[in-house]
Amino acid sequence: MRYSTHICERFQHGAEILGKRWTGLIVMLLLPGPRRFGELAAELEVVSDRVISERLKELEREGIVERRVYPETPVRIEYALTEKGAALAPVINALQAWSERWVDAVPLTEGK
Amino acid sequence: MRYSTHICERFQHGAEILGKRWTGLIVMLLLPGPRRFGELAAELEVVSDRVISERLKELEREGIVERRVYPETPVRIEYALTEKGAALAPVINALQAWSERWVDAVPLTEGK
Repeated sequence: MRYSTHICERFQHGAEILGKRWTGLIVMLLLPGPRRFGELAAELEVVSDRVISERLKELEREGIVERRVYPETPVRIEYALTEKGAALAPVINALQAWSERWVDAVPLTEGK
Repeated sequence: MRYSTHICERFQHGAEILGKRWTGLIVMLLLPGPRRFGELAAELEVVSDRVISERLKELEREGIVERRVYPETPVRIEYALTEKGAALAPVINALQAWSERWVDAVPLTEGK
């Protein structure tokens, strides 16, 4: 990149986080508030639990999602957006508006 | 997907278009106006011409970029955003703002 090296680097990384299969959707599902694993899995029914679990771990490593453990009986575990994750709301909303207007619906499969 | 099947499908597809390595950046570079191949290549200097060319073809297939050929001597070829492509501006701008605020700079390499 010439004139805008660091802008390009950060943008590219941000775009790849959201573009990775299911990651953007998981963030979208967490925007309204924390969810349990089973609730996410029920929404993302074409995706295996293993893949959802991997994506949540990646989002935790990126500092976008946090895993909250409540020491109740039985233990309650919720996934919530961090401040960094919640700051993605304008991106997700703009992408959702664009997709609804411009992208033809194609059936989802789990893919890779 | 349960309650929001077609929203999820379209969103996922839209996120993957932008998230594919270099695609979002190419759209960002075209937002101010049409560019020639050589101008794009100069900005994306870590990316090979072959990869830039592939990405431009994919964006053409998605209806996001159009290739304009002006029959001058020598022939002038420009890449421009279509209406669908220009409609990505709010997404790109929101993602750029988020990335600048929240993503640490990491050096870019061509990658896959």
